[in-house]
Amino acid sequence: MRQLISLVGAGPGNPELITIKAIRTIEKADVILYDTLANEELLNYAQPNCVKKFVGKRYGCHALSQEEINVLMIDYAFSHGHVVRLKGGDPFVFGRAQEEIEAARQAGIEINIVPGISSALAVPATQLIPLTCRGLNESFWVTTGTTRSGEISSDIKLAAQSSATVIILMAMSKLEAIMDIFATHGKKDTPVAIIQNGTTAEEKMVIGSVKDIFFKAQYEGITNPAIIVVGEVVSLHPSILTATINNQTTSYFAAKTKQ
Amino acid sequence: MRQLISLVGAGPGNPELITIKAIRTIEKADVILYDTLANEELLNYAQPNCVKKFVGKRYGCHALSQEEINVLMIDYAFSHGHVVRLKGGDPFVFGRAQEEIEAARQAGIEINIVPGISSALAVPATQLIPLTCRGLNESFWVTTGTTRSGEISSDIKLAAQSSATVIILMAMSKLEAIMDIFATHGKKDTPVAIIQNGTTAEEKMVIGSVKDIFFKAQYEGITNPAIIVVGEVVSLHPSILTATINNQTTSYFAAKTKQ
Repeated sequence: MRQLISLVGAGPGNPELITIKAIRTIEKADVILYDTLANEELLNYAQPNCVKKFVGKRYGCHALSQEEINVLMIDYAFSHGHVVRLKGGDPFVFGRAQEEIEAARQAGIEINIVPGISSALAVPATQLIPLTCRGLNESFWVTTGTTRSGEISSDIKLAAQSSATVIILMAMSKLEAIMDIFATHGKKDTPVAIIQNGTTAEEKMVIGSVKDIFFKAQYEGITNPAIIVVGEVVSLHPSILTATINNQTTSYFAAKTKQ
Repeated sequence: MRQLISLVGAGPGNPELITIKAIRTIEKADVILYDTLANEELLNYAQPNCVKKFVGKRYGCHALSQEEINVLMIDYAFSHGHVVRLKGGDPFVFGRAQEEIEAARQAGIEINIVPGISSALAVPATQLIPLTCRGLNESFWVTTGTTRSGEISSDIKLAAQSSATVIILMAMSKLEAIMDIFATHGKKDTPVAIIQNGTTAEEKMVIGSVKDIFFKAQYEGITNPAIIVVGEVVSLHPSILTATINNQTTSYFAAKTKQ
């Protein structure tokens, strides 16, 4: 029996935002080990006799440790053949894919990667917030904002000085401290959007600026899983564009009244 | 007749790396305006009477200008109904989506976004180079490296000081100058990978370090479309890991011989 482990990206939440390649891989699985973040509807693509096992991880609250997942993955590959490790978003964007690849390599098992749509990119996009815009900037920076030990990454200071759109994942507990760093670097008025459960029916968004987003997010009760977007591109969100147009209209009428 | 414009991501090149949602949107198109970078096989999903028009853009060499594409898109929406603008990768990653959204808005036409797999993420992934790795770093930065006027972005200096994996798109003509900036910031030995035509049968890769990648890429004849990846994560590529293991083996035997 041939052993194979496929690391498959399940996309950001909406079950249609998965690739053809991912579905064809799920169809060929003997075992699927899936996370909380992967939409469970996707399991319907599997063969009837496929073993489906939840190994759920969500923001520090783990059903199984990474080590336990690795062991399970290897054991199933030897006992059943083709194991699909189905992960939310893209397996290589903060997905700890490297640890799973390492485990497979040490066991001498072939590895196959199927990229997924990362929520870091897709969630702002479906809200019509582009990550870059000609004339505004030419880059975007995706970060968890914190190092392995839980401290705020020193890279946040560099990010705050750049023109990059900064996308921060899984960082709601550090929101105030991260916004303080942006404010210190002259960005207190830079627009910020926070999107919770993006691309799904439960999507919720709050828009503000570096100086007030922490209070706005608290008021709206925004929690993880959420994506924080900091940058001038946030001002391209339809709600802000409309507000700007309305303000201009008001000023125009005010000017007319004064004549 | 209802007018609708869908901006659809076609993914990085491999025709299986497109989403179900993108295919369902293509199936409903009355007109498809597509780029060079979108794989032409994807057009087979369209209805037989769908108008398919190449508006190819590839690295500054444009069949039509962005303004002409915008006009065409609006005209077709009014004459035919549903226009799909099919773009390589993800429409919001350097895809000039914002200009097309603006044109649609001004014409009062509804817009629909279907995210795609960005080559910036998928190409390193399919080469087993993770963009982040626990313990190594906690972020990645995607940039074109150059501003609208063609100058090297001042953000490259910040990127060179960070621990972020830096992914640079469409920048082969500036490779030497960009590597010089990394070298100036103490990164001459940082590993670099350049991948041309990633995820397709024509894929070609060269691996080196900041100090020698320019010569290696020239020697191998690597040209655009290529993706440059700068960062410690490149050392996780299987070819380097194997080389490291072999070197260790050599040293081990050398040590044994000396005994």
